[in-house]
Amino acid sequence: MTLADQPPAAALVFQTLLQHGPLSRAEIGRRTGLTPGAVTKVATPLMADGWITEVGRPATEGASGRPATLIAVRAERALFAGVKVTGEELIGVLADLTARPLATGRVLLDSRDVGTVVLAIAGLVDELRTAGGMAQSDALHGIGVTISGDVDSRLGTVQYSPFLDWRRVPLAQLVESAAGAPTVIENDVRALTVAEQWFGAGAGLSTFALVTVGAGIGAGLSIGGRVVSGAHGVAGEVGHLPVSGVERVCTCGNTGCVEAVASTHAITEQARQATGNARLTMDEAVRLAHAGDPAVRAVFAGAGRAVGLALACVANLIGPERIIISGEGVASYDLFADHIRQSFVDHAFGAAVDCDLVVRPLPFEEWARGGAAVAAQRVFAPAK
Amino acid sequence: MTLADQPPAAALVFQTLLQHGPLSRAEIGRRTGLTPGAVTKVATPLMADGWITEVGRPATEGASGRPATLIAVRAERALFAGVKVTGEELIGVLADLTARPLATGRVLLDSRDVGTVVLAIAGLVDELRTAGGMAQSDALHGIGVTISGDVDSRLGTVQYSPFLDWRRVPLAQLVESAAGAPTVIENDVRALTVAEQWFGAGAGLSTFALVTVGAGIGAGLSIGGRVVSGAHGVAGEVGHLPVSGVERVCTCGNTGCVEAVASTHAITEQARQATGNARLTMDEAVRLAHAGDPAVRAVFAGAGRAVGLALACVANLIGPERIIISGEGVASYDLFADHIRQSFVDHAFGAAVDCDLVVRPLPFEEWARGGAAVAAQRVFAPAK
Repeated sequence: MTLADQPPAAALVFQTLLQHGPLSRAEIGRRTGLTPGAVTKVATPLMADGWITEVGRPATEGASGRPATLIAVRAERALFAGVKVTGEELIGVLADLTARPLATGRVLLDSRDVGTVVLAIAGLVDELRTAGGMAQSDALHGIGVTISGDVDSRLGTVQYSPFLDWRRVPLAQLVESAAGAPTVIENDVRALTVAEQWFGAGAGLSTFALVTVGAGIGAGLSIGGRVVSGAHGVAGEVGHLPVSGVERVCTCGNTGCVEAVASTHAITEQARQATGNARLTMDEAVRLAHAGDPAVRAVFAGAGRAVGLALACVANLIGPERIIISGEGVASYDLFADHIRQSFVDHAFGAAVDCDLVVRPLPFEEWARGGAAVAAQRVFAPAK
Repeated sequence: MTLADQPPAAALVFQTLLQHGPLSRAEIGRRTGLTPGAVTKVATPLMADGWITEVGRPATEGASGRPATLIAVRAERALFAGVKVTGEELIGVLADLTARPLATGRVLLDSRDVGTVVLAIAGLVDELRTAGGMAQSDALHGIGVTISGDVDSRLGTVQYSPFLDWRRVPLAQLVESAAGAPTVIENDVRALTVAEQWFGAGAGLSTFALVTVGAGIGAGLSIGGRVVSGAHGVAGEVGHLPVSGVERVCTCGNTGCVEAVASTHAITEQARQATGNARLTMDEAVRLAHAGDPAVRAVFAGAGRAVGLALACVANLIGPERIIISGEGVASYDLFADHIRQSFVDHAFGAAVDCDLVVRPLPFEEWARGGAAVAAQRVFAPAK
């Protein structure tokens, strides 16, 4: 039996327990709108198959009668490997049904060749199994591989990855063959958004955006409980909103893109021009800005303004409750925080300014956890 | 009995028939995923209460055995009035469950005073009832009033309407008292999007945007079958995306807004500056542009570029299958069509350019029909 074979009410009960459990049967009924009889009917096979369990009674209830039995998800019922692929390395995590990490690991890539990367992923998954204490006979329930770029998760194909210079790579199938477990792939930012939606700063919100600032600038949009993937595979491309008003040419060939002034690469290049030092690194630019160099500080200010304009676009269009700002860029967030916030406030329309801006440094292990969350989601929230 | 008292499967069956009917029971089962037994269980009370009916058998089936009975929605089972409120007039429509218009009417407003407008709405609804042949004893199932601005449909309150200069007006309750039928209110663009989603150019699409260009510039976004309303009541504000790169000050006080260069008012003002004629009207600007006046043509070109950038933002962020362009502005669409399309194509990221752009002139009666669709939606797709 798998959860996917169960009626829709089973997925609803399971999702409710996953996000809000442990809960009494009565509380599950209240939250799902199911009758007590329907809750019991749904819960019985889930319990028999080990997906949920009774976890005793709350100690706080007493005088008001017999306390209700609580039900919780058995998070250890299924384990998942999540792997984030960058141009330089793989970052992996072994996690349970709630995306709780049980083991993590990293592997440097010595080539971006598809075959090499696939074998490295399979090797890392093996290491994670061992590190997580899984026996040879224990089956991994699923693998989720995440990667920056245009990823068609339905086809299981990386349509285009600029960092790896891959086009139309059937990655899901290749990893599944090499690692021997059902594999899903997803755009890395979207996968991180899934993890935030179920288990992070987006839990319980009807609409939120996760904007990542770093080598690239992207976003995941969670609207009405679903991460938007776009009819043509493109969505959340905040880096390519034409708002900067600056003529610098972007990697996409356009001018005006946020990424053309606010990506790590763009900041470094502009700092080189500003200082006349053609070999300046990002770290040195950050140091100069912290030391008060006005020209370099202006570069960060411009980057912050462009990011703030992008956030205002997101707020004006979809009106999220919260925008979570993350990515490597937030390590030097102090250098552009004020400019981001100011240009956001200036350009958010009306009540859109009430959108909560939250900065959340998420290391690559969290991104890998996003892969595990996407794989787990196939179990508890199967696509229609 | 109302549909809202029925189990969720009833709404699903009803919605499926509404959008795709008439259908056989077997086809309803295929499209909803319900078993034949469940379809029958759900259909029986709906049929008994007159919401759906059997409509005979398809003539085309024959040799292959006994043709299946088809089931259809009884569109006339419930009637709705939809009213669009502008600063100058009311536009009303009486429509059935499928938002098919049975009667239309217009009333000029001689004041924007809340009490006057409410009474005028009630009067128009009465006229529509008569024009539609309803008897005094026939109950109107609901009224949907739509209005430009910040409308909180949950509270039933117009938070802010710039055209009427209204703030925090509990319009739903006022109209309900005056007209004697359950009333809902909605932002006018969002209501039009609901009508397009169920019965128009958005039917069957998982994600589309409706962008209206005219006195204001706004959009409705339908994502995963729901029109986005924003956590703080703001969404789809394409007119206030900071993309124009132009310093003209917008009605919202900002610079860079699309509306500041592409609204009817903004085009007229810019044409006045370009010609030195301080009394030029929009119609005259259109005539001059059609006659080849280069300065006025450049104004339309700039407006088109700004709208195209806004469309690119929508496509890059939510990746719709289609963007429908409407509003009074499309009457002179030929003057900026090329510029809209070119700046959209230039700035749409990757496959987002595959988004279908469709121009659809929708007279105000269609907007009023949006109000009827929103009222009808309360019956067949009750909010959770």
